Amino acid sequence: MSERLFLHAAQVITCAGAPRARRGAELREAGVERGAAVLVRGDRIAAVGPQEVILRGAPDAEIVDCGGRVLMPGLVDSHTHAIFGKPRYEEQEMRAAGHDYMAIAAAGGGIHSSVRDVRQRSEDELVALALPRLRRLASHGTTTLEVKSGYGLSLDDELKMLRTIRRLSALLPMRLVPTFLGAHEIPQEARARTEGRREYVDVIVRQMIPAVASEGLASFADVFCEPGVFTVDETREILTAARQAGLGLKLHADELRPGGGAELAAELGAVSADHLAAISESGIRALAGASTVATLLPGTMLFLGKTRQAPARELVEAGAAIALASDFNPGTSPTPNFPLVLTLGVSQLHLSVAEVVVAATVNGAAALGLAGEVGQLAPGFSADLALFDIEDVREIPYWYGDRRCHRSWVRGNEVHH
Amino acid sequence: MSERLFLHAAQVITCAGAPRARRGAELREAGVERGAAVLVRGDRIAAVGPQEVILRGAPDAEIVDCGGRVLMPGLVDSHTHAIFGKPRYEEQEMRAAGHDYMAIAAAGGGIHSSVRDVRQRSEDELVALALPRLRRLASHGTTTLEVKSGYGLSLDDELKMLRTIRRLSALLPMRLVPTFLGAHEIPQEARARTEGRREYVDVIVRQMIPAVASEGLASFADVFCEPGVFTVDETREILTAARQAGLGLKLHADELRPGGGAELAAELGAVSADHLAAISESGIRALAGASTVATLLPGTMLFLGKTRQAPARELVEAGAAIALASDFNPGTSPTPNFPLVLTLGVSQLHLSVAEVVVAATVNGAAALGLAGEVGQLAPGFSADLALFDIEDVREIPYWYGDRRCHRSWVRGNEVHH
Repeated sequence: MSERLFLHAAQVITCAGAPRARRGAELREAGVERGAAVLVRGDRIAAVGPQEVILRGAPDAEIVDCGGRVLMPGLVDSHTHAIFGKPRYEEQEMRAAGHDYMAIAAAGGGIHSSVRDVRQRSEDELVALALPRLRRLASHGTTTLEVKSGYGLSLDDELKMLRTIRRLSALLPMRLVPTFLGAHEIPQEARARTEGRREYVDVIVRQMIPAVASEGLASFADVFCEPGVFTVDETREILTAARQAGLGLKLHADELRPGGGAELAAELGAVSADHLAAISESGIRALAGASTVATLLPGTMLFLGKTRQAPARELVEAGAAIALASDFNPGTSPTPNFPLVLTLGVSQLHLSVAEVVVAATVNGAAALGLAGEVGQLAPGFSADLALFDIEDVREIPYWYGDRRCHRSWVRGNEVHH
Repeated sequence: MSERLFLHAAQVITCAGAPRARRGAELREAGVERGAAVLVRGDRIAAVGPQEVILRGAPDAEIVDCGGRVLMPGLVDSHTHAIFGKPRYEEQEMRAAGHDYMAIAAAGGGIHSSVRDVRQRSEDELVALALPRLRRLASHGTTTLEVKSGYGLSLDDELKMLRTIRRLSALLPMRLVPTFLGAHEIPQEARARTEGRREYVDVIVRQMIPAVASEGLASFADVFCEPGVFTVDETREILTAARQAGLGLKLHADELRPGGGAELAAELGAVSADHLAAISESGIRALAGASTVATLLPGTMLFLGKTRQAPARELVEAGAAIALASDFNPGTSPTPNFPLVLTLGVSQLHLSVAEVVVAATVNGAAALGLAGEVGQLAPGFSADLALFDIEDVREIPYWYGDRRCHRSWVRGNEVHH
């Protein structure tokens, strides 16, 4: 089996430890090694240790000269809506001019705008639109990417989105994790009728989830649990059906108002509760006592021009596990630059560099049920690596808005940026 | 003379108009042309107009196929501290952990840290460190860059910094505008003595300014006018001497507390007053009635984790001219990505896309006394162009953190990214 030896890194950031989410005080340690080498055998990390030791054990390995740069696990972006049609840049300017969510929706914008758009497009079109966008995400160091459906909101259109993700998985070197988000919104045609809301939940539970599960199109089901969108009871019903169908669970929770979403995520054993800008004290306690990862999306709050951010420090101090994600989507977070989200983790969420690095690797992996597979440079893990053109890991959040990713590998194969 | 014809742009953003800063309502128009071509003759824009007309008039011109992208004036970044030694990433984490400016200074950080560092380095070292950094700024579409001294704070070290800028001008394709900022801080050795402060102002006025002027090393003089740094009276004394020596004037004003800096900038006829996060009502009125450009640096506030931003809309409504700049520096704004600053202009400052585009071109130029030379695609202007890999100018602030600049030219010569 082919061997590849990564030598001469200024730092190797292993993020190594138990193959599960890091929480509270454990977040403080990212595992910074100097003079270390990484040996890859086939698609797996075989060894990490002092250069001379590793070199002696693999004299015939192909050498990758890291040239004094920083080598770390490829970034794990555990929350995106990366399949969409047209970019919704008009809404950014409307928001800046003071128009709120309702005004933008009344002007034909918001999630429904992307739904109308995606419904009109073929799978081929969606693949063609997504490819260059996902390559941009890869060029910033992301090697694992969760991608949600949720702009279809009908059986056929949701399946079309998930099949698009499956085709992209075969075309791209990145590891894509598909999530079924039929419960992203109540579709407009359902909102127009008294019984529409109830009927749509039934469609999700009785038609979409069985179809998604039988085709094996998604690893997770997700629900936008928020006052005005799906209630806690509806969310429980949908996610319970999803769990029975064999899907893992995720939640959009407490983004705008505290609505019991985080508590429900903990109750159901969801892998993650995401957004959380408005999480309550009881929500924080619930996540601190559960295996559910608190996934924070500070780029979205920045792009929306909001000054309130999720209470990251309170979550850490309470002992919760924190992940960061880009929320890459056409309305509220169109950044392909995941390292910029790490900057916001430090500057806006007051996390340390070790905390944001763990949040974007180990804990991103845990938020996708991949804690034993990706997010660490440790023996047995997938050979997913990113080499950054910096000398110290602290330069990742520091040079904000830059693209410092120099090379990356997924399952031992180099990603061409 | 060689002719080059830019064809097939999705949009040509001319920013054309009178060769002076745009203010108030005039900011709303960036000049978006479809089906337009740009003809460059030598180092100048020769013509902008409908493709077929321009093509007929220049049948032998070399064709640059813009491939359905957006062509606009190269970006003008009118406020940076781009000459420095080591990046100060430790301070970012200290701030996130709640340490304030005084605690960071006590730990050896802040401006004085960069001063100690720059004083130890040779001109050769400073050139070698700056070159790749400035190339990164260029790769995001910046074609004109103001660069300040101010980490020397002694006659020899300030001259060393300005000579470094002069050498970089010869090595880089970008247009560099050097600013003397000996009055960036009171040096520590002067702060330690009762008379030190007064003596340092004398050194600036009697030694530095004459030396800078006689060597022709700077276009502008700048002062950090802020309670605790240089007072309004000291600033007036220094800038009056600078003006008598033939230098243009700029001010760091009202960054932390309203101190009369904006009013002084207007009184002295400075080309710009910069920062302004704490500008007073009377400061806004003063700038609205003067030719001084209000230069806003929203990236700095973001990186510092502050939620307060300069009152951009109030400045626009009052009729002031607004520029945006990156403030690229090792302590408080290490971004090379000027388009990200435009994103912040929309999302954080509530400016429109037209306003941020004019702020980063026409008005950046005015803030450097170059209003008739750069920042517009109009006959007679320097052939400084940037081609962005987007179809609509609104995508520049939209794809935040991305690098969409595809190619750029300065004085008709292509910049190799």
